[in-house]
Amino acid sequence: MKREELTEMIVDAKARREISWESLAQAISRPPAWTVAALLGQHPLSRPEAVTIVELLGLDEAVIPTLTRVPMRGSSKDAVPTDPTIYRFYEVIQVYGPAIKELIHEKFGDGIMSAINFSLAVEEKKDPAGDRVVVTMSGKFLPYDWKE
Amino acid sequence: MKREELTEMIVDAKARREISWESLAQAISRPPAWTVAALLGQHPLSRPEAVTIVELLGLDEAVIPTLTRVPMRGSSKDAVPTDPTIYRFYEVIQVYGPAIKELIHEKFGDGIMSAINFSLAVEEKKDPAGDRVVVTMSGKFLPYDWKE
Amino acid sequence: MKREELTEMIVDAKARREISWESLAQAISRPPAWTVAALLGQHPLSRPEAVTIVELLGLDEAVIPTLTRVPMRGSSKDAVPTDPTIYRFYEVIQVYGPAIKELIHEKFGDGIMSAINFSLAVEEKKDPAGDRVVVTMSGKFLPYDWKE
Amino acid sequence: MKREELTEMIVDAKARREISWESLAQAISRPPAWTVAALLGQHPLSRPEAVTIVELLGLDEAVIPTLTRVPMRGSSKDAVPTDPTIYRFYEVIQVYGPAIKELIHEKFGDGIMSAINFSLAVEEKKDPAGDRVVVTMSGKFLPYDWKE
Amino acid sequence: MKREELTEMIVDAKARREISWESLAQAISRPPAWTVAALLGQHPLSRPEAVTIVELLGLDEAVIPTLTRVPMRGSSKDAVPTDPTIYRFYEVIQVYGPAIKELIHEKFGDGIMSAINFSLAVEEKKDPAGDRVVVTMSGKFLPYDWKE
Amino acid sequence: MKREELTEMIVDAKARREISWESLAQAISRPPAWTVAALLGQHPLSRPEAVTIVELLGLDEAVIPTLTRVPMRGSSKDAVPTDPTIYRFYEVIQVYGPAIKELIHEKFGDGIMSAINFSLAVEEKKDPAGDRVVVTMSGKFLPYDWKE
Amino acid sequence: MKREELTEMIVDAKARREISWESLAQAISRPPAWTVAALLGQHPLSRPEAVTIVELLGLDEAVIPTLTRVPMRGSSKDAVPTDPTIYRFYEVIQVYGPAIKELIHEKFGDGIMSAINFSLAVEEKKDPAGDRVVVTMSGKFLPYDWKE
Amino acid sequence: MKREELTEMIVDAKARREISWESLAQAISRPPAWTVAALLGQHPLSRPEAVTIVELLGLDEAVIPTLTRVPMRGSSKDAVPTDPTIYRFYEVIQVYGPAIKELIHEKFGDGIMSAINFSLAVEEKKDPAGDRVVVTMSGKFLPYDWKE
Amino acid sequence: MKREELTEMIVDAKARREISWESLAQAISRPPAWTVAALLGQHPLSRPEAVTIVELLGLDEAVIPTLTRVPMRGSSKDAVPTDPTIYRFYEVIQVYGPAIKELIHEKFGDGIMSAINFSLAVEEKKDPAGDRVVVTMSGKFLPYDWKE
Amino acid sequence: MKREELTEMIVDAKARREISWESLAQAISRPPAWTVAALLGQHPLSRPEAVTIVELLGLDEAVIPTLTRVPMRGSSKDAVPTDPTIYRFYEVIQVYGPAIKELIHEKFGDGIMSAINFSLAVEEKKDPAGDRVVVTMSGKFLPYDWKE
Repeated sequence: MKREELTEMIVDAKARREISWESLAQAISRPPAWTVAALLGQHPLSRPEAVTIVELLGLDEAVIPTLTRVPMRGSSKDAVPTDPTIYRFYEVIQVYGPAIKELIHEKFGDGIMSAINFSLAVEEKKDPAGDRVVVTMSGKFLPYDWKE
Repeated sequence: MKREELTEMIVDAKARREISWESLAQAISRPPAWTVAALLGQHPLSRPEAVTIVELLGLDEAVIPTLTRVPMRGSSKDAVPTDPTIYRFYEVIQVYGPAIKELIHEKFGDGIMSAINFSLAVEEKKDPAGDRVVVTMSGKFLPYDWKE
Repeated sequence: MKREELTEMIVDAKARREISWESLAQAISRPPAWTVAALLGQHPLSRPEAVTIVELLGLDEAVIPTLTRVPMRGSSKDAVPTDPTIYRFYEVIQVYGPAIKELIHEKFGDGIMSAINFSLAVEEKKDPAGDRVVVTMSGKFLPYDWKE
Repeated sequence: MKREELTEMIVDAKARREISWESLAQAISRPPAWTVAALLGQHPLSRPEAVTIVELLGLDEAVIPTLTRVPMRGSSKDAVPTDPTIYRFYEVIQVYGPAIKELIHEKFGDGIMSAINFSLAVEEKKDPAGDRVVVTMSGKFLPYDWKE
Repeated sequence: MKREELTEMIVDAKARREISWESLAQAISRPPAWTVAALLGQHPLSRPEAVTIVELLGLDEAVIPTLTRVPMRGSSKDAVPTDPTIYRFYEVIQVYGPAIKELIHEKFGDGIMSAINFSLAVEEKKDPAGDRVVVTMSGKFLPYDWKE
Repeated sequence: MKREELTEMIVDAKARREISWESLAQAISRPPAWTVAALLGQHPLSRPEAVTIVELLGLDEAVIPTLTRVPMRGSSKDAVPTDPTIYRFYEVIQVYGPAIKELIHEKFGDGIMSAINFSLAVEEKKDPAGDRVVVTMSGKFLPYDWKE
Repeated sequence: MKREELTEMIVDAKARREISWESLAQAISRPPAWTVAALLGQHPLSRPEAVTIVELLGLDEAVIPTLTRVPMRGSSKDAVPTDPTIYRFYEVIQVYGPAIKELIHEKFGDGIMSAINFSLAVEEKKDPAGDRVVVTMSGKFLPYDWKE
Repeated sequence: MKREELTEMIVDAKARREISWESLAQAISRPPAWTVAALLGQHPLSRPEAVTIVELLGLDEAVIPTLTRVPMRGSSKDAVPTDPTIYRFYEVIQVYGPAIKELIHEKFGDGIMSAINFSLAVEEKKDPAGDRVVVTMSGKFLPYDWKE
Repeated sequence: MKREELTEMIVDAKARREISWESLAQAISRPPAWTVAALLGQHPLSRPEAVTIVELLGLDEAVIPTLTRVPMRGSSKDAVPTDPTIYRFYEVIQVYGPAIKELIHEKFGDGIMSAINFSLAVEEKKDPAGDRVVVTMSGKFLPYDWKE
Repeated sequence: MKREELTEMIVDAKARREISWESLAQAISRPPAWTVAALLGQHPLSRPEAVTIVELLGLDEAVIPTLTRVPMRGSSKDAVPTDPTIYRFYEVIQVYGPAIKELIHEKFGDGIMSAINFSLAVEEKKDPAGDRVVVTMSGKFLPYDWKE
């Protein structure tokens, strides 16, 4: 079974059973962003997590090995995403990418923010002028370090 | 004068005069991320800001109109950035983009995080297991709203 | 079910039953351009709207959750559209894009026309020298606004 | 002289002399959107128009033949524009392109909106909930017509 | 049904029944180039034409609505065609495109050859040094005309 | 000297001296389309032709070897041309390419229209409903012929 | 039936029946390179050739019309091939393409090596330092010849 | 100095001095195809070869280190070459690439034709039906060999 | 059967039967990296190897001819891989590719590291500061050698 | 000054002065691969290192700030490198990338080899059957670790 087909089955089942991402995350005691990414095919579940999800969504147990495999990551068929909600983050890189790079180097020295030792949260911030989406990315700073 | 040539002049002058982005931001009383993006050609300065920057960096006054124009935005010549520090943010979109989309929709409904009514901060979070880069993006939620 | 397969089913059913887009729009009391975009997979329907459409087109009720989900937007597989009717709008961006940008900045200041708080109409204008297609796009002006 | 170099000279001179696009358009009695597009290298000027522009902007007369030549049109080096103000129009094509196509066919039959026999206006619409950018495109309907 | 699947069925049926494009064109009293383009999915047939084609090729009547719909045009999956017979025409654009543009402008002024009010013929020209393929394209000249 | 720089010099000189392509073609007794293509860098001139052109346009004699070299052909930097006058021919390939292929095979058998043993003419056809651009391409039919 | 599906059936049948390309070529009295290209979907077979192949490989007779049709040529989905055995030939073009061009022009004048009136052989040359693959391409020289 | 600028200087000097590639090859006692590729920037010359070439073409001695460096190879800016003389070889790969692969595997086993231990010749073959370009590529067969 | 479908079956069977790559490699007495590459569709197995694998994974014997065929190599659909674990190696080429090239030339002269006469190992190196992945690539040096 | 221009100056000076990469590396007491990458624009030098290099190569001191800045990394203009020496490493990713991924996951669990906490060596291994290039990459294993 291709992972994308399983992703479609998950999304369909979630809609039919009217279960929220939030409650799926709680069911496996994982942060929401991690859980959604995992269920959309970007992270492997542990076996008990997979069993829980399969039950909650009413999927066939045969999909468990696919859910627990490390997936081939990467969600966008095109280099530039077309969905507006996702594109805005691509736009942020186009407009602020080099500035973020300069600030990381000025604050930390030469290196990167890890996208592996990393977490991400999407939160709502109430604001009378219009509520705000706050996305916080936290990644370990990795200095360029030539270690043989 | 092409904006890219001015960007190079700014970066060279900043290095020669050993001025930090932080202090340039303070000089014009603007947030650091906004300031760096502006100086790298992604936002226009007001005239007084431009005058301050030109003085601090010892640039020719003739560049002021270029600094105060709304620029043609977008920093990456390639659809996929090659610099590792910038690429990690592209990777975040590849791995977490659809999950962020799902969570925005679950929390706010159908719509996007604005990248225009938006701010961004790069901060350092001390951590005994290795300091962390924390990038916070805050954008107004814009619901799909068909208004004629 | 993939959204594209549902789109094909909708288009086939509409042709077989000889129902116009206009009448589908009226049936759900929505503007025509919004309705067509939604049925082609670019906007979610509310549940009652989905029920009405399913009945009118004789579709299976099982497609309702797909119709009411926020879709992954973006219709063109290629960065440059090949269909001549659609391509002309791409050409308009190639020829007039920077001019529109300059005029928005001159009239409103630095910012964009929202494509989210947005509406669009396609109308016919009678003209003895040949009738004209008039496409009106109305989007809220969003000023660049750095709000933390 | 390459047309792009002349475009930069025009944009620089306009900024230095603080002349608006609107007043340049009035000086040559042409609509604003046409004028800006022409000055940015997308339409040829007539000789008297070119003379007027050269005087107003203080350009060298040697550029007149370049201003009056039919240019090689197309402004975006990349298939997908990166500037947010321009990108939103590309997004409109991604989200609404097929819907516009369907409505043109339903209203007019098989054919296109001409981008040649065409005009475009950018206007401001006051709105208490936020002013709106209204872009109106008017193009002659051209039916597919096989004429030998 | 996807239009491409119908195209394959048409091409298969035509081969099995050994019917020429020429005779299909005569059966519906249309020019050959138009007919082949239509049957390959680039133009809609009228209902009587579709009925005739379906009978001649022994297709299922259920395909008629697909044959009579305005199709999503564009035949090449890649920007540059790989088939040598088609590629030569792409090569003609690469080598002669700007020359054709200059000659159209010199003879007609600023504008284009319409590809909509257009016809095309492929003919054989006997020649002792080797017969020649003569492709004649005839399109209405459309002058750039800014009509509001 | 790069051929593109010479092309710009030719185009500039032609504009300044107000010489038509037609008269340049007559001066060297060559067909117009061939001449324009050659001067735009797609065909080599013979030495006497180059001398004539250099004189007529007032160019430096040092450019003659560049004019008489076989050039690296191909005019479009992008796979898909952006100029509308040229794009329409690309559109013709997208819409009619496979139909032309089928007709060549039906009339001549398996093979191609040569783009080397080839000529092209751009002509004006008067028509009360609007004058027409007629582009005639004539290329030798080359059958697939496996000759060792 | 799509030609690619038939190609897979041919390749599978050939493997199951353990028939060499060489013997398939002999069975239809055609050169090996031509035969393999044809069976992989790049050339049409004559009807008797198709019948022979269908028998030898145990295919269904229904595939004969597909085998005898002029195919849509071109084998690589990507502009740059990824298979190392094929890529080396692409590399030869990258490294030697312009040199081959210069030598063809120096020896023959302005023109090309035909890829239509063309043959190709892959041979083994014994060599104590390691056997060599010798690929010989023979194509008719076609001079640029403007014939109206 | 960029290698491409040196290549232009070489090509210009060769044209001005009317020296053939053949005689340049003889002057350094190298095969023609190797010599042309080297002078076009694809192979390094030895120092004595570079000295000879510099003298013959009247170049500045300062270019010798550039001529003797191993260059960054690859001549085509685009993945698909646009020049027709070079393109035909790309077409050969599109049409015959998989067939060549199959024949190499059938004759030699799993492996490739080396493009490094390799030579290439462009020759003229007289033929009453039209002279032929014969390009012979000879590369050592390299079997896939997993050697630790 | 397409090779990719077989790859999916192998990966599914391996997960279901909980067999490690290591043990599959041992079962056919091949190095791990070679074995995994082969099973993922990049190398052919010998017939006995294929028989062993088919038994171990419980596959249908009909897949043996596909396993023993030389495959069409190349695993990434996109030029730039999106999976982070694979991307890091692409990044290594972006950052260190030219440096590796210079060092190969300085140590060995003009030539390449073979990717055909080649082996690769992935090993674990214990390190108190964090275990390290050590990837060793060993390829025969192939000097550029023009041998006719 | 653009970093690429400085890279060219470094490469030219190195060639003129006939200094090896090895000795430049020793002069600044850095590993060779790191040093070459740094001098080709992929890593910043410390100020003393930059001073040493400037002296050794006879460069202008004004380039020191450019040498000590963190550069915008990434060396290849094209997604797929064209130089054969570099391309072979890209080919290794195409052929072995997924296998390396599987082995990293099997040995270490879900995660990546860091390309930041990383070192690389190019060594020569004598072998009677032909000397071998051995490239060793050593990167810290980074497990996917969701740390908030």
